[in-house]
Amino acid sequence: MADFSLEVPVSFGHCDPAGIVFYPNYFRWFDRCFHALLQDRAGGHRAICAQLGAKGLGLMDVGARFPAPATEGDLMRLDLTLAEWGGKTLRLTYSGFVGDRTVVEGYELRGLFLERDGRMRAGDIAPLRALLEAR
Amino acid sequence: MADFSLEVPVSFGHCDPAGIVFYPNYFRWFDRCFHALLQDRAGGHRAICAQLGAKGLGLMDVGARFPAPATEGDLMRLDLTLAEWGGKTLRLTYSGFVGDRTVVEGYELRGLFLERDGRMRAGDIAPLRALLEAR
Amino acid sequence: MADFSLEVPVSFGHCDPAGIVFYPNYFRWFDRCFHALLQDRAGGHRAICAQLGAKGLGLMDVGARFPAPATEGDLMRLDLTLAEWGGKTLRLTYSGFVGDRTVVEGYELRGLFLERDGRMRAGDIAPLRALLEAR
Amino acid sequence: MADFSLEVPVSFGHCDPAGIVFYPNYFRWFDRCFHALLQDRAGGHRAICAQLGAKGLGLMDVGARFPAPATEGDLMRLDLTLAEWGGKTLRLTYSGFVGDRTVVEGYELRGLFLERDGRMRAGDIAPLRALLEAR
Repeated sequence: MADFSLEVPVSFGHCDPAGIVFYPNYFRWFDRCFHALLQDRAGGHRAICAQLGAKGLGLMDVGARFPAPATEGDLMRLDLTLAEWGGKTLRLTYSGFVGDRTVVEGYELRGLFLERDGRMRAGDIAPLRALLEAR
Repeated sequence: MADFSLEVPVSFGHCDPAGIVFYPNYFRWFDRCFHALLQDRAGGHRAICAQLGAKGLGLMDVGARFPAPATEGDLMRLDLTLAEWGGKTLRLTYSGFVGDRTVVEGYELRGLFLERDGRMRAGDIAPLRALLEAR
Repeated sequence: MADFSLEVPVSFGHCDPAGIVFYPNYFRWFDRCFHALLQDRAGGHRAICAQLGAKGLGLMDVGARFPAPATEGDLMRLDLTLAEWGGKTLRLTYSGFVGDRTVVEGYELRGLFLERDGRMRAGDIAPLRALLEAR
Repeated sequence: MADFSLEVPVSFGHCDPAGIVFYPNYFRWFDRCFHALLQDRAGGHRAICAQLGAKGLGLMDVGARFPAPATEGDLMRLDLTLAEWGGKTLRLTYSGFVGDRTVVEGYELRGLFLERDGRMRAGDIAPLRALLEAR
């Protein structure tokens, strides 16, 4: 059961000369899906950072595999799951489907970045968890 | 009265370090809006090209102005109008609104490109007009 | 005679299913060329804004036409000219060439945006001119 | 020792409202680096596909981690290594540096995709290896 879903109509301009989605676009969609979740649950990235005194909910690690291609005219449903909360990390998983065909499966590992003594470091993730699970 | 409209939720990743939409994204949205119209009215760019023996509905000229900025969390409504059919050109106009604030106004001039004797040239636009106005 | 030039190797991922450059990329290259000029002449956008108390060198108006397509493997030379200084505007013109073939011609109209009483407005452009013509 | 390197000047437009590189851009640079290698060693993706009867050198799996941020004005050197040839796969590794600071480390797993009986499948990778190691 996904925590959030986004519909992505695949357009001509998302595709490359082979006629399939140019892969960096999938990561733009992962990021957009995460920010749409933030908007939906806690007023968006900017509001959350202000509330938590953070610089950003930055990315530490990311990956994806592509079992099948998607192309112009496809309607992809992208599912996000808040998969695992660590001490300083949140692991999100993503699955993209066109009909019942899986076109992408991936993850993002994110932290809550704070500025301390002029340096950025990942802080305790619990306050973000509290915000996102509040409703 | 617009011929087609697209809702564009402005996301964190669409914005630049000044916190406003990085302007080339507006053109990605113009192009996406045009292709969504093609999909809606005549089965999409690929189907239309196959039917008309064309290589593409390519861009000749484009422009935009930006009366006000849009930012993370804004929901933009982008209106497209089939503004003017020439002999070999279609002029599309676009207006983007966040609430009642205009954030972009622009146009695209497009042609129906055919390959003749190994060269690409703009052909008669009437067959495209017939397709798009058919319904 | 151009004021600045950038070499842009056109890559597979810049092109669309028709095999030619997806047009919003040209505007990413215009913007990149402008920022490279800022870096070259006055330490970059961030340093200039800090020095002039500005929020950004934002875009008001932009346009381009595409006399010929560019494709994967082409090496485009993009020329920028500081074409015209107004009271509150700078007009930049751009020309892109692959060999001796012109693939894009366009312009950007930019202002120096300041925050005054919580609103952004275009300020006097003369301090920017002084910086860019200093050397 | 890298098999290929690309210099990437990080521009304003590559960065997000947090002022650091919007992460999908790293994958655009991975892909661009790979295609630049293809150009350098064997005439580019299109020529290679024509020679090998392939549809594309497509992506199966990709990942990256980001030990430190990169920002506007940074010059990143991106190193590519042909890390491992499998029966039907090529594993590429990438490392990006700004000065002596590592900003990204990642990989791509690619295959040589052929169309057989109307379906795409990964073929024997040996002919690609022969081409890329020929010189």
